[in-house]
Amino acid sequence: MPLMRSWVEAANAPDCDFPLNNLPCGSFRSEDGEPHCGVAIGDMILDVTRLEQDGLIQMEDEEEIFFYGDWTEFMSLGPAAWAAFRATVTEMLAEGAADAPGLVDYLVPMAGTEMMMPFTVAEYTDFYAGKHHATNVGTMFRGPENALPPNWLSIPVGYNGRASSVVVSGTDVRRPWGQLKAPDAELPVFAPCKRFDLELEMGAIVGVPSEGPVTVAEADEMIFGYVLLNDWSARDIQAWEYQPLGPFQSKATATTISPWIVPKAALEPFRCDTPARERPLLDYLKEPGPMLYDIALEVGLAPEGKAETVISRTNYREMYYSSAQQLAHHTTSGCPMSTGDMLGSGTISGPEKAQRGALLEITWGGKEPVTLDTGETRSFLEDGDTLTLRGAALGDGYRVGFGACTGKVLPALDDPYKR
Amino acid sequence: MPLMRSWVEAANAPDCDFPLNNLPCGSFRSEDGEPHCGVAIGDMILDVTRLEQDGLIQMEDEEEIFFYGDWTEFMSLGPAAWAAFRATVTEMLAEGAADAPGLVDYLVPMAGTEMMMPFTVAEYTDFYAGKHHATNVGTMFRGPENALPPNWLSIPVGYNGRASSVVVSGTDVRRPWGQLKAPDAELPVFAPCKRFDLELEMGAIVGVPSEGPVTVAEADEMIFGYVLLNDWSARDIQAWEYQPLGPFQSKATATTISPWIVPKAALEPFRCDTPARERPLLDYLKEPGPMLYDIALEVGLAPEGKAETVISRTNYREMYYSSAQQLAHHTTSGCPMSTGDMLGSGTISGPEKAQRGALLEITWGGKEPVTLDTGETRSFLEDGDTLTLRGAALGDGYRVGFGACTGKVLPALDDPYKR
Repeated sequence: MPLMRSWVEAANAPDCDFPLNNLPCGSFRSEDGEPHCGVAIGDMILDVTRLEQDGLIQMEDEEEIFFYGDWTEFMSLGPAAWAAFRATVTEMLAEGAADAPGLVDYLVPMAGTEMMMPFTVAEYTDFYAGKHHATNVGTMFRGPENALPPNWLSIPVGYNGRASSVVVSGTDVRRPWGQLKAPDAELPVFAPCKRFDLELEMGAIVGVPSEGPVTVAEADEMIFGYVLLNDWSARDIQAWEYQPLGPFQSKATATTISPWIVPKAALEPFRCDTPARERPLLDYLKEPGPMLYDIALEVGLAPEGKAETVISRTNYREMYYSSAQQLAHHTTSGCPMSTGDMLGSGTISGPEKAQRGALLEITWGGKEPVTLDTGETRSFLEDGDTLTLRGAALGDGYRVGFGACTGKVLPALDDPYKR
Repeated sequence: MPLMRSWVEAANAPDCDFPLNNLPCGSFRSEDGEPHCGVAIGDMILDVTRLEQDGLIQMEDEEEIFFYGDWTEFMSLGPAAWAAFRATVTEMLAEGAADAPGLVDYLVPMAGTEMMMPFTVAEYTDFYAGKHHATNVGTMFRGPENALPPNWLSIPVGYNGRASSVVVSGTDVRRPWGQLKAPDAELPVFAPCKRFDLELEMGAIVGVPSEGPVTVAEADEMIFGYVLLNDWSARDIQAWEYQPLGPFQSKATATTISPWIVPKAALEPFRCDTPARERPLLDYLKEPGPMLYDIALEVGLAPEGKAETVISRTNYREMYYSSAQQLAHHTTSGCPMSTGDMLGSGTISGPEKAQRGALLEITWGGKEPVTLDTGETRSFLEDGDTLTLRGAALGDGYRVGFGACTGKVLPALDDPYKR
């Protein structure tokens, strides 16, 4: 598919994240202070809430789907409504559109506009579906002979995360306190995390709810779109707490998502297969077609007041399991899925050191600090560091991007119980 | 505290779960088919939604807090509102109340009335805080030398569960499918669970939300009340999936709660201390007073069409950590807590075999089947079995009960993907 041209000129630039081919969904603080639903186009945001108020967009009869500036209700309408909306907005913003002059009034400059949570997270599940990552982390935590757990090639291993901790790009993240036990100590102490880390992931957003088990094909139909996702991780808290029931407080400080949900429709041209299986999958996990996406990803780290260094470059196609497979597995027990459920892909690492999606892996547990362009080194994150994830599917002369997924690390509180 | 007498005569019987001392909160299907909020008194339900509609109860100015038949909004109002409401209802239902004749019209017989979910579960966290249970299960899963994980005496170990799977007492529970791997098999199969189990727990319901870490005392203030909780567990799915990131689909089929939330206020006379510490706690987990409750618990199992056998009798005071400690730990990372969050205590087992709260423990992994009064035996649950949890704090001449927490096991689907 070539670039689709828009009358919003900036959208036609080859390095723009938001051409007409994309039309991602976000929420922004409008002039009246309230959240509005918006669609990114070039360097502008199309105010969908106002379009609905003025009767220029109408979903499902009389309902004010976009009134609260949250995409959750829209996502619950399902694929036919998503397609109808996309067709309407595409027509509005296409080069030569008759009503372009009237629509200029509904465009808000992206620069300087505050982005807000684009949807209400129902529940959040995080997976562990990258083989390079699982092998690296398993080697560090359990030794090379136990690196990949016996179930890993059969199950998209996942655990339930904490929806209340999901925040939108731009939100500061406070270094947490927790129980830490040094390897040579007998007992833990309660102290600020010393090994605070990022995890580069994609998040799949469930639009259509389900009751009972669904197939991989049905799961794919249920997914509305994807976000970039940084699953902040306190490695020292994790190491002490995670046996036997999994990560808990180490993952509950924050999970940051990109401000834009890229609709699955925009990613269709970039579908690709999961890698060859090293063990045959059970039938219920077999994919009826390509369910991964070719999305180039990178992680930037900028120390306080200094220039950024890109510390990782990888691609979503490195994953061993797709989000559709993860979602299908999630329903095997009969677990009901809801509109607004978010599935983290798991950390996306490639085979090379420069392709690893977490400092834990890049610095091999802190033993091989990474040197930044500023000359500083990092084992784990330091206070004042700003982390930025970026991602885009690369088309012929255009790109489908997610916008930056950013968060700055604030120092731990002196005393977390002082009010 | 003695029995508080009510003009609803059945409430004064010593074996009634719902004396005036209790006043638990539930939701029931009213005559008009809609859910209404109700308070249990004797063998009746006081229709709080209708009382509010008619202006006899008013919370927070004009708001219709009880309109939707859900207690979530009420719980968010906090302790002062809870106390004011409790005082109002106590006055209405007390023996000699002047307006008793007019209130008779707001009483609905409990018998034959369908109970519904009393609140909207925001997120669900399940703990592992019973020492007898953790020791028993650990011995079976990891051997006696690794029974209690190294962190267990320092951390109230917990994991995030799945809020969408929480159902109210009376809901049938369908035996799940999942990945099962026999100990002597090399690879798993996808098949119906063969080792389906219950877990006897209490659930603490968060009323007041929080941002940032809270103390144990503050956590206790945030808790609105308690329910009985059956954390249905697929042991064969769990054994294969739970390493390294914890239970996932094995716990996602259903979690059943009692229809009545017993307010913390009703349990105050029954507070008791957690057991002596075997390792000193970190300061943030130290309790400023008694935070457990003396609540007698039992589990009944009735095969299809047959009489019930009580297979376990234990007490909530057996827990090593209180819900307040669990909630305080839950916030250490800065994890925001929401109105409607539910914390499962973990399985409540006493030191004796007859006091164990799961078949896994009672039958020692299925090796020592339990014999029912009907002469049948059980290693794990069979299709058609009805499980009933009961619990009550026992006062002097009265009891504060939760009502039955019941669920029947339906057979697995022949083919989970057949529509």
